[in-house]
Amino acid sequence: MAGLILACDFGGTKLSAAVIEAELLDKPEPAWRGHLRRLSPSGASAQTDMAAMIEMGRELLAGERPSRIGISFGGPVDYKSGVVRLSHHVPGWENTPIQRLFADEFGVPAQVDNDANVAALGEWRFGAGRGVADLLYVTVSTGVGGGWILDGRPYRGAAGMAGEIGHTVVAPDGPLCLCGKRGCVERLASGPYMARDAAIAFGMPLYDVSGKLVAEWAEQGVETAVAILERGARGLGVGLGNAANLLNPSRIVLGGGVTKSGERWWQLVRQTAHETALPEVQFDIVPAQLGDDAPLWGAVALALLEQTSQSN
Amino acid sequence: MAGLILACDFGGTKLSAAVIEAELLDKPEPAWRGHLRRLSPSGASAQTDMAAMIEMGRELLAGERPSRIGISFGGPVDYKSGVVRLSHHVPGWENTPIQRLFADEFGVPAQVDNDANVAALGEWRFGAGRGVADLLYVTVSTGVGGGWILDGRPYRGAAGMAGEIGHTVVAPDGPLCLCGKRGCVERLASGPYMARDAAIAFGMPLYDVSGKLVAEWAEQGVETAVAILERGARGLGVGLGNAANLLNPSRIVLGGGVTKSGERWWQLVRQTAHETALPEVQFDIVPAQLGDDAPLWGAVALALLEQTSQSN
Repeated sequence: MAGLILACDFGGTKLSAAVIEAELLDKPEPAWRGHLRRLSPSGASAQTDMAAMIEMGRELLAGERPSRIGISFGGPVDYKSGVVRLSHHVPGWENTPIQRLFADEFGVPAQVDNDANVAALGEWRFGAGRGVADLLYVTVSTGVGGGWILDGRPYRGAAGMAGEIGHTVVAPDGPLCLCGKRGCVERLASGPYMARDAAIAFGMPLYDVSGKLVAEWAEQGVETAVAILERGARGLGVGLGNAANLLNPSRIVLGGGVTKSGERWWQLVRQTAHETALPEVQFDIVPAQLGDDAPLWGAVALALLEQTSQSN
Repeated sequence: MAGLILACDFGGTKLSAAVIEAELLDKPEPAWRGHLRRLSPSGASAQTDMAAMIEMGRELLAGERPSRIGISFGGPVDYKSGVVRLSHHVPGWENTPIQRLFADEFGVPAQVDNDANVAALGEWRFGAGRGVADLLYVTVSTGVGGGWILDGRPYRGAAGMAGEIGHTVVAPDGPLCLCGKRGCVERLASGPYMARDAAIAFGMPLYDVSGKLVAEWAEQGVETAVAILERGARGLGVGLGNAANLLNPSRIVLGGGVTKSGERWWQLVRQTAHETALPEVQFDIVPAQLGDDAPLWGAVALALLEQTSQSN
């Protein structure tokens, strides 16, 4: 594999792009040749975001032609056809054939997938999942979502919807989630829901409370915050243990802001997950390694994927 | 593919074997050339069961040599090495290299897997899962266990433990399961546990109550039995909906005695599973088609599998 790889990340509120020389990818610490980040302006549409991203790509490539393009999109994507279903953040994305548009624009093959699948791929190829054939990646952040590597390749499900661990139910009598069910993992463990539960408990405006603040209060020993954070950690742990019983991955990688909630949170997630899984179902739970550039590294991994499983 | 396929089923309390001509398998209704069933006597051991199965095979083959052998085993098996881990019913099976023993005995390739994976394979190749690339098969019987077909091939997990939907937790405050957790799918939905709950509720000896009887009482409108059966159906439905959110299979096939509990049971399982899954996660839930011979048909499918994923 030679040439330049263009990696693009449509992140909802920001756009990132980077270029790397494919030859560098086998080195211990491959570095970007160039890297750009731009906020997606508040009046952004699919059209303006596309134009901005193409401009960033052109700037990074400086007249050179890439050999491949990988794209991470922060919303549902039909991987097979390379079409964005919609964005929850930016209007006008419905049914945009993003893969074809990039391929036409740059004259080279492009691949696109949703951010959870791309992050799973990135951690597997460059991060905490290296060398593992069966992997679940879960981001615990504004939402809770995941992606699978099974038998050494990405698994997306019959309609590309696999990995929705955030909406598995772990407490049918638990609090109500926006999805209409009670006790979803996301309802218990995501940052905004923990913030909301804390705001209500303390009679504070929701505007003033974040998931991060709940974790800080818990660290300081504020009882209600401890209870909210621990309920979230346990709910996530049951969800992960259930997933382990169902698929028997050898590793689970956790990313996202909520994973910065401290040792006690990690200890409870791990303990609950292992208690939920059968003793024969063994796995480790480790933090993601790629940090803020995870979608871009994942986009590189996506660009490098064998094309065999693609039908178009 | 030509020649005879020998299919063997070590079922815990009974042994079955059958022979089929591979050429027939593409016909609409392929039939066994010969079929034998024998109870595993109460004093049975791994050794006597093996000897009996080999004798049945020899009798069915009548001097001919099979081209391949498929074996379903009612307990944990290491698929890659072809070694039985143990049997919960018959002593002496620990670490038996059953694949090698059959291959040596008959001088042809043999494949072995646990009964849930084999049943999934059978329904996929010959039954209710034909034509589907992403499938979850679940047996709801003495236990609750499952097997996956993902991207058009069996998925077994990192250590062959995938499919343990029976021990996913759907009600953390629910009744205690033998596995040590509360509110497992198996604790709520399996025949023996429903029988036990009914026996306790009615003050009857456990010996007198079966899962089947609970379903009959429910059919007659006995309130406590209705409640027990419905709780089981809902628990299973949450487990199936969670599995659908995690893997997005396009079909779920249900087999086992408890699936004969009537229309109301099916309706509740389906409704709960679809309510638990996100609206975008679509799938149907259908009854298994292969009946009592399911493990044998699955063993045939196993014998026919490409050998690529096998490391030994």
